[in-house]
Amino acid sequence: MAIKGGQIKDTHIENLAKIVGTSAILYKKEDLLAYDCDGFTIHRHLPKAVVFPNSAEEVAQIVKYCHEHDLPFLARGAGTGLSGGAIPLNGEVIISLTKMKRLVSVDLENRRAVVEPGFINLKLTYSIADKGYYYAPDPSSQYCCTIGGNVAENAGGAHCLKYGVTTNHILGLEVVLPNGEMIEISTNGVLDPPGYDLLGILTGSEGTLGIVTKITVRILKNPEAKQTVLAYFDKVSDASQAVSDIISAGIVPAALEMMDKTAIEGVEAAAFPVGHPKDIEALLLIEVDGISAGIDEQIQEILKVCRSRNVREVKVAQDEKERERWWANRKTGFGAMGAISPDYLVQDGVIPRSKLPEVLERIRQISEKYGLRIANIFHAGDGNLHPLVLFDSRKPGETEMALAAGSECLQACADAGGSITGEHGVGIEKREEMRFIFSDEEIAAQTNIRDVFNPKNLLNAGKLFPTPGRCVEVKRNEKMK
Amino acid sequence: MAIKGGQIKDTHIENLAKIVGTSAILYKKEDLLAYDCDGFTIHRHLPKAVVFPNSAEEVAQIVKYCHEHDLPFLARGAGTGLSGGAIPLNGEVIISLTKMKRLVSVDLENRRAVVEPGFINLKLTYSIADKGYYYAPDPSSQYCCTIGGNVAENAGGAHCLKYGVTTNHILGLEVVLPNGEMIEISTNGVLDPPGYDLLGILTGSEGTLGIVTKITVRILKNPEAKQTVLAYFDKVSDASQAVSDIISAGIVPAALEMMDKTAIEGVEAAAFPVGHPKDIEALLLIEVDGISAGIDEQIQEILKVCRSRNVREVKVAQDEKERERWWANRKTGFGAMGAISPDYLVQDGVIPRSKLPEVLERIRQISEKYGLRIANIFHAGDGNLHPLVLFDSRKPGETEMALAAGSECLQACADAGGSITGEHGVGIEKREEMRFIFSDEEIAAQTNIRDVFNPKNLLNAGKLFPTPGRCVEVKRNEKMK
Repeated sequence: MAIKGGQIKDTHIENLAKIVGTSAILYKKEDLLAYDCDGFTIHRHLPKAVVFPNSAEEVAQIVKYCHEHDLPFLARGAGTGLSGGAIPLNGEVIISLTKMKRLVSVDLENRRAVVEPGFINLKLTYSIADKGYYYAPDPSSQYCCTIGGNVAENAGGAHCLKYGVTTNHILGLEVVLPNGEMIEISTNGVLDPPGYDLLGILTGSEGTLGIVTKITVRILKNPEAKQTVLAYFDKVSDASQAVSDIISAGIVPAALEMMDKTAIEGVEAAAFPVGHPKDIEALLLIEVDGISAGIDEQIQEILKVCRSRNVREVKVAQDEKERERWWANRKTGFGAMGAISPDYLVQDGVIPRSKLPEVLERIRQISEKYGLRIANIFHAGDGNLHPLVLFDSRKPGETEMALAAGSECLQACADAGGSITGEHGVGIEKREEMRFIFSDEEIAAQTNIRDVFNPKNLLNAGKLFPTPGRCVEVKRNEKMK
Repeated sequence: MAIKGGQIKDTHIENLAKIVGTSAILYKKEDLLAYDCDGFTIHRHLPKAVVFPNSAEEVAQIVKYCHEHDLPFLARGAGTGLSGGAIPLNGEVIISLTKMKRLVSVDLENRRAVVEPGFINLKLTYSIADKGYYYAPDPSSQYCCTIGGNVAENAGGAHCLKYGVTTNHILGLEVVLPNGEMIEISTNGVLDPPGYDLLGILTGSEGTLGIVTKITVRILKNPEAKQTVLAYFDKVSDASQAVSDIISAGIVPAALEMMDKTAIEGVEAAAFPVGHPKDIEALLLIEVDGISAGIDEQIQEILKVCRSRNVREVKVAQDEKERERWWANRKTGFGAMGAISPDYLVQDGVIPRSKLPEVLERIRQISEKYGLRIANIFHAGDGNLHPLVLFDSRKPGETEMALAAGSECLQACADAGGSITGEHGVGIEKREEMRFIFSDEEIAAQTNIRDVFNPKNLLNAGKLFPTPGRCVEVKRNEKMK
């Protein structure tokens, strides 16, 4: 075979090509450029090669090969991750799972479906919609992100307030461990399965513990009814208070989203404008769903709460078309920033709901300090903030300023008793910010688990934990033994 | 000090007494007898000593002492566990957490409470009931079991169908690791916290990874309304079908319980008889809760389903008193077997709801084969069966037959694609049955995690995994390295 690899030895390329076929491997520099980053575009690194296995067995063979030859490797889905989890920091061999995109089976009676990791999130819902079912986790990228990637990042979405995040919907995983062995982990349909919660550890492990090759997910029956409210406020504090009041009233909305003035400016300039007033300070998008009986009463209660908090205008979506338009407007939120700024950095902090006004004020001060606009879009119901730092990477030093401002926003969340990520993961982006919330001992307790699964640290090394970190880990290992 | 320990060296007793005080240690054989088993009474072993620390720091000191002197140890809450998790199989030093029973704080605004591990489950609900809040996980033993024990076993309960099990309600843990170090793990209020899911691994680890000294739990607002239905069926198959129909109708009941004829005979002979007809084959106890609007419609739908499945009689609880009586009757279920049999063994299998009729038939055959009556009480909504094998331990060989019958019931659940435990844990009881659902590799993936936390295996050794097991683990360790 006359394959020439620019990045690794030709024999490695040849041997990997033997596993997947010569048409399922990329190794020339020009072909590798598309794989130098994911949705976190600030760091870029070239992989040594990209392979496209077609089955779990091929994944296992590739992993075994890399393991034996000490080649770093990582798995990649659609590459939509926002924290850099799929960036080949060490020139990894990328195992792209985009060819493994089969819907393996659907079991409506027991509400389960089995998919391969490259299966697109929204396609699952489309595949079962005519039977009246859907898959709940709905990250904004759901039209293109893969369920394998969702598992790696424990993806959330607008509706996770009521329905939970990916981990709450995973019933089983087939996993290739970093040495090439395969295991199956399953709840067997049980709420409290025997043994340790390996499903929990794998889900959200950001591709550092194993490569998922098959996924059993829970599917849900479509709610009988859905209603959606849009509320405009002159003051952020009133909108925040309305959020608390709705939850206090015992209502669990399916979604409870908030956007501030800058965010509204962005979404109105982007693909799906709704005609939101330009001079409001905040809007809430609130959805309730469930059986028909009771929905109207919940909507009335929500309208009452909004009015008691000085809402300027509040309305209920008149039909499915209007509802969809409101959601399309919201879901373009991040990308929409491109319409009002050359670049933007998405942050992803979490705070207790009660701290919302105080943290928003601190974010305003950070924005002033750095002279950078910060838009806020957030899952207000669960206190998951997405400060969007707007900047221009062509201006010298502004990228660094944006990163610093983003980090300060996360510090504000940590100081308020919250956390540095709600759903986007740590990846490369927030490695150092892990120290805002974890002690050395606590980080070591985690890296020790990684080392059990991934003792050679060839799989997606350098992610999720602070660097230089190693000294902490070594210290810990000594202490624990 | 003139302390004499019957089971371990006097110096150990003296040194442990220095940590907790001489009045907070038991070491005489007659005092230790009460600690030779928990709710699983078939295995009995004497501990070497029982210590009663008063603080996390004391727990850490005891653990450090045991770690340094290679003394096996384990933690114990109220001792209500049904799988033997707190039995000192190796003559462990028992660390009883019953003195650490403080309610540390309640934060209604952010819906959290912090408790010490010895705090009684139901007391938490009592403590916040006047403010309109409650703690959801409700094992039948909730009036006496501790929240620390609930964390260890990931306890469920009748209402976990809608509200989830303990792991879904734990927001943070303070943990003493098996070497005496302390770490804090917290979600910081996040649905998808950064790093690996240590909370998930610790919760349900059956006391093998660490000792929990403080627990942050989620508290919920009382549902505005609750209604409860009791339905009597002449055929188990009709009752099973009604369960499926209710779920298919899109209703998520707060609880959906089933009892068969033998179980009904027991509860009617016990402390809280309701007057159930003696000749029915099955009853369903169904509860819906939520905001008032819509509850009536759900109840009407449930009544309709029951009638379409040939219900003999169906009624709605007329007031809170009647509702409570129905629940008291159900919650005595296990103990009630004492009224109709000298001994009973509780099993705890799980099956897909659709396999209910087929597995019940197999359990009937097992009952016939062994000539032992088997009562069935179960959380039908989530397919969690509790076959109660009735036997008389005074008759030679009958205990062994009961154990064998129980194990066959679990095999039936595993064969149906289910699992060997739904909420009681593996403990000593179901160690061998782990092989029904896990391969050697899968068990090794778990024991490897244990060894990271618990490298000397002094903490609660011999639980949760099959014996001799060691050879599997060793094999695995070699393969992974």
